[in-house]
Amino acid sequence: MMDLAIIGSGPAALTAAIYAAREGLNVTVYEKTAFGGLLVSIAQIDNFPGFPDGVNGGQLAANMQKQAEKFGAKLKYGEVSSITKNGENIELIVDGQTVVVRTVLIATGSVYKKLGVPGESEYLNRGVHYCAVCDGAFYKDKKIAVIGGANSAVQEALFLTRFAPVNLIVRSHVKASEHLKQQLQIAIKNKKIILHKHTSVLEISGNSQHVTGLKLQAEKTFELPTDGVFIFAGMQPANDFVKDVGIELDNDGYVKTNEKFETSQPGIFAVGDIRSGSTKQIITACGEGVTAAINIREYLEG
Amino acid sequence: MMDLAIIGSGPAALTAAIYAAREGLNVTVYEKTAFGGLLVSIAQIDNFPGFPDGVNGGQLAANMQKQAEKFGAKLKYGEVSSITKNGENIELIVDGQTVVVRTVLIATGSVYKKLGVPGESEYLNRGVHYCAVCDGAFYKDKKIAVIGGANSAVQEALFLTRFAPVNLIVRSHVKASEHLKQQLQIAIKNKKIILHKHTSVLEISGNSQHVTGLKLQAEKTFELPTDGVFIFAGMQPANDFVKDVGIELDNDGYVKTNEKFETSQPGIFAVGDIRSGSTKQIITACGEGVTAAINIREYLEG
Repeated sequence: MMDLAIIGSGPAALTAAIYAAREGLNVTVYEKTAFGGLLVSIAQIDNFPGFPDGVNGGQLAANMQKQAEKFGAKLKYGEVSSITKNGENIELIVDGQTVVVRTVLIATGSVYKKLGVPGESEYLNRGVHYCAVCDGAFYKDKKIAVIGGANSAVQEALFLTRFAPVNLIVRSHVKASEHLKQQLQIAIKNKKIILHKHTSVLEISGNSQHVTGLKLQAEKTFELPTDGVFIFAGMQPANDFVKDVGIELDNDGYVKTNEKFETSQPGIFAVGDIRSGSTKQIITACGEGVTAAINIREYLEG
Repeated sequence: MMDLAIIGSGPAALTAAIYAAREGLNVTVYEKTAFGGLLVSIAQIDNFPGFPDGVNGGQLAANMQKQAEKFGAKLKYGEVSSITKNGENIELIVDGQTVVVRTVLIATGSVYKKLGVPGESEYLNRGVHYCAVCDGAFYKDKKIAVIGGANSAVQEALFLTRFAPVNLIVRSHVKASEHLKQQLQIAIKNKKIILHKHTSVLEISGNSQHVTGLKLQAEKTFELPTDGVFIFAGMQPANDFVKDVGIELDNDGYVKTNEKFETSQPGIFAVGDIRSGSTKQIITACGEGVTAAINIREYLEG
């Protein structure tokens, strides 16, 4: 019987696979689309320690995949549609087939909510971004726009002002905490943020290489020259299949874990962006994968 | 005034420096001996994700150092001898000079307790190891010895049996938990562990390239052919200078932190091996550095 099934194949999943397989566990990683998860869509990662000139996300993912396989982890394409506890064991349905395993690590991550406008998919990571901490530094002294009016949008807009002034595009009005609203007012006064209220995004335009501007709709439509647009329409956990297992989720649908990365169901662990409270950073996800792998081994040893 | 002083320069420290500097904080890393911390003494790291052929610890440390400096972090040699809160700020004494900073990240790590026998320093990482999870896999089907009789020694000896049978050398008798003692008895019965009680290590011998054996003293002295010896005489936190700040430590002297990696003193954070409950894994330390850097930025923003 398989010791550990890992669902998802992003950095948290692959690092857990490296550790667990290297420690002699019988591990299979199940991925429904592309190995590497969100990593594969990132052109340049500057803040993964050990790569001073940056690293391509797809390359980093391929490296981790090779490393996990080298230690004996099996990487398989397959969609997990349900997880059921069966006494001491756990039953997965993978592409319609039942697989019985001793432990499960959920590492399916989360997905950015899309605006759904033309240009958004086309210029992903070529001017369209969903993470300011990850990609803000690429836009030092360039034209930055932020889309969104909730806490995260305001917070990230304030953060991005350290690189350049920010156009903040809000569909209706700002719905952030009082504290953030005060900080926003100061930034507006200091000309670090230009607030566009009651403004919708019609299109993200570009020169086929990268983003050059936004087509916006306020009282009338206008074009805003833009190099980088950061979209904060929220994220959503990739948790479809976990809903029936009785794992405790937070109000936003992320999986709750303790300090060992155990969920509320014995033998089922969770790491990375699917986890309630995660930092949404690659290296932190990797670190969580390690800690979970060590705790899973100890769990299996009884 | 400096936003952040990081004490120590291992992977947790350097990753925090990469993130904090990249986000525009004014950061200085203070190191009293060699940049990279324990990393620089590791010949081959197999389980750092992204390096499928492994990576030399010194090279990895140099990469992280270059990366931190690229984003504007300053790396300085200097021994921090005290930390004192002074209102909102924090005063450090660095090589006798006072430095005033806004936040401090303690990342001084911990050091393995040494046996103090001939050969131990000479063959460090060439047959002498202090971490089974890190280095155990190098000794698949080779001759493994473990030194120590407490919980960690027994636990790691049991772990190492997945690679090869283990000689467990105990100075007096085994002082581990009942559960571990039971597992040990099973392993002895299955010939996976050979227990040598009332046995001391006189010398770790080698061929100048790597370890070849142990000179042991029981009723009489004898030589035990050995490829890899794992020493579990305990670890100690590198916490000399933190004792006077009033930071809460656990019973073993490690720094207590909350989920934001804050210590009990506002503005003073801790990550990596100095932290109570750390996993003592490089990639986990890096992940903690990221989370701390993000929380430090938020703390500075009030």
